[in-house]
Amino acid sequence: MSPKQRQAGQPAPPHPGYPIHNDRLLKACRRQPVDRTPVWIMRQAGRYLPAYRALRKQVSFMKLCKTPELALQATMTPLAVMDVDAAILFSDILIPVEAMGMKVVFTEKKGPQLPGAIRSEADVAKLRVPDPEETMAFVPQAIRLINAELRGRIPLLGFSGAPYTLATYMVEGETSKNFYGIKRRLFEAPKLMHALLDKLADTVTAYLNAQIAAGAHAVQLFDTWAGALSPTEYAEFAFPYTQRVIAGLRRERTPVILYVNGGSDYLERMAETGADVLSLDWRIDIGEARRRVGHKVALQGNLDPCALYGPPAAIRAQVARVLQSFGKGEGHIFNLGHGILPDIPVAHAVAMVDAVHEESARFHRGV
Amino acid sequence: MSPKQRQAGQPAPPHPGYPIHNDRLLKACRRQPVDRTPVWIMRQAGRYLPAYRALRKQVSFMKLCKTPELALQATMTPLAVMDVDAAILFSDILIPVEAMGMKVVFTEKKGPQLPGAIRSEADVAKLRVPDPEETMAFVPQAIRLINAELRGRIPLLGFSGAPYTLATYMVEGETSKNFYGIKRRLFEAPKLMHALLDKLADTVTAYLNAQIAAGAHAVQLFDTWAGALSPTEYAEFAFPYTQRVIAGLRRERTPVILYVNGGSDYLERMAETGADVLSLDWRIDIGEARRRVGHKVALQGNLDPCALYGPPAAIRAQVARVLQSFGKGEGHIFNLGHGILPDIPVAHAVAMVDAVHEESARFHRGV
Repeated sequence: MSPKQRQAGQPAPPHPGYPIHNDRLLKACRRQPVDRTPVWIMRQAGRYLPAYRALRKQVSFMKLCKTPELALQATMTPLAVMDVDAAILFSDILIPVEAMGMKVVFTEKKGPQLPGAIRSEADVAKLRVPDPEETMAFVPQAIRLINAELRGRIPLLGFSGAPYTLATYMVEGETSKNFYGIKRRLFEAPKLMHALLDKLADTVTAYLNAQIAAGAHAVQLFDTWAGALSPTEYAEFAFPYTQRVIAGLRRERTPVILYVNGGSDYLERMAETGADVLSLDWRIDIGEARRRVGHKVALQGNLDPCALYGPPAAIRAQVARVLQSFGKGEGHIFNLGHGILPDIPVAHAVAMVDAVHEESARFHRGV
Repeated sequence: MSPKQRQAGQPAPPHPGYPIHNDRLLKACRRQPVDRTPVWIMRQAGRYLPAYRALRKQVSFMKLCKTPELALQATMTPLAVMDVDAAILFSDILIPVEAMGMKVVFTEKKGPQLPGAIRSEADVAKLRVPDPEETMAFVPQAIRLINAELRGRIPLLGFSGAPYTLATYMVEGETSKNFYGIKRRLFEAPKLMHALLDKLADTVTAYLNAQIAAGAHAVQLFDTWAGALSPTEYAEFAFPYTQRVIAGLRRERTPVILYVNGGSDYLERMAETGADVLSLDWRIDIGEARRRVGHKVALQGNLDPCALYGPPAAIRAQVARVLQSFGKGEGHIFNLGHGILPDIPVAHAVAMVDAVHEESARFHRGV
């Protein structure tokens, strides 16, 4: 069955059916009352955890992503040390890019390298829109394994890079500082970029549908680098493709979280994508964000990842400040404004999670 | 005479006294009527100009900054090819950092390198607050030479890095992508950072006063990297030092322009620094910025530097869009949202400047 067929409105296959015991996160996504603010951490299974580093000594990053049993192990690692309210699939945002036919090499020092960066229409024409069950079957398999192990204790988040952010890697060939390469192409060759984004939107839609079908309870779209765009270019090259992906998801109540690093200038526009939750970086006051869009969407965030360098007492004060800024009521998922950094002490991450649970009760009426 | 003595409210020495023929930029800074929107380009004397590249084949970047006759030559170079409404001193934001006693090495590939990056209180204690007339005399000398050559044709802008942005280089040791080094120190060792910023504020104040005394008609403070801070950290580590610098300037009507890349979340706060003009990056719609702070300050910007990769007709459309977004009336200086990129064709920069002048007349009543 091709991705197109699967997108064409067929009913979603039944969920594995574990009832979710701790559903704070799903309730917060839907702006329903909770007893305390749910919290998880972007990259919570990452390099700051000794157990993860030990795992990585044995296997490469790619092998970890592509072996469901190992992805399960990595996904579960943080749950042993922290009382987070969600697990997040261990994977990489470039998995679908590789499945489209591009070579992706993960290097320790320089991050992902894509030697065949997109230059021409011929390069775009060569890319396929992959069937995720054929090319990325290890992802739905990992999701099924993780849910079997979680048995509904907490929800499992799936994720994908959003089309524009995946395009940045495909055009730049690596993580960029300023994204001059892709932005040059947006202004020089907008049609070429639209052709690429078109294929990416179909790919990401099918990929997330496969994750939802396998049992992801919510999905996060990482449009991490769209914050480097002006509002005009965001509206042309990022927004419509994100909107199309979300519209194409075969979901009943599966929430969609949209993350943009540096997206505070586009919040209103992001709220029109169909996402249920906007995930903020640390640059905007979350209370201000709530005033701007909180009547339409829930909000996730937004502690500066560097705040975890401070001592636990300072971390608690920073947590309290974010909670206070959001204020009383529904629709807040606590998180960092970007992924946790590799040199953060585990105890500081734990201090943050505990502080969220302890400090947040007073902002909720209880359920 | 020490910088402290010079700051202590003594009257400013008389200006060289050339009346400014084209004073559009100064009028726009003061939100007075003009016939067309003034325009200049950050890094307008930079590497995109063949004449500048030729000059650099003969002398090092540092020699260019430190030799008034060469800085004059570099400053004048763009004026031969473009009808910009201001000249900007050719220099580097790290000049005062070197004068404080830190080693700064400019490399072609990796940008500035500061091998003695600040680690401890002892490192901060070693730094001096330099007398600019002793340690940076080449800067006021260059300003006097440039004004003598301009003879009032257009105004001359001086500039300095703002304290927080200079601190990023001093702590990171180089241009950073994510500023994790300094941000770690803000959370781990806030007192150390305040001690550094304190010295920087005194240094920058004295340095800009020397530029104003020598004849700079306006000055721009580059707090380029303050946009990586959360509003809370901006309020603690960037805002008060910028405010103190501006309050310490011995100026009568010399406008101050404040630039922050990624500062749109702090616009209201930036407008409280005492700056006359806020210089925007490209991420915010300038019309939106005007609605937020345009009753307090003028605005500079805000075309995406990458828009100049597009063909001249597209550049004109982008210029018209920015002008339209600001709308009719006073208080707009056209510029890019960051420095012009080294591989932009000169003809595209010229196309932008011409488009600003031609498209902007309809937004002004004339004077």
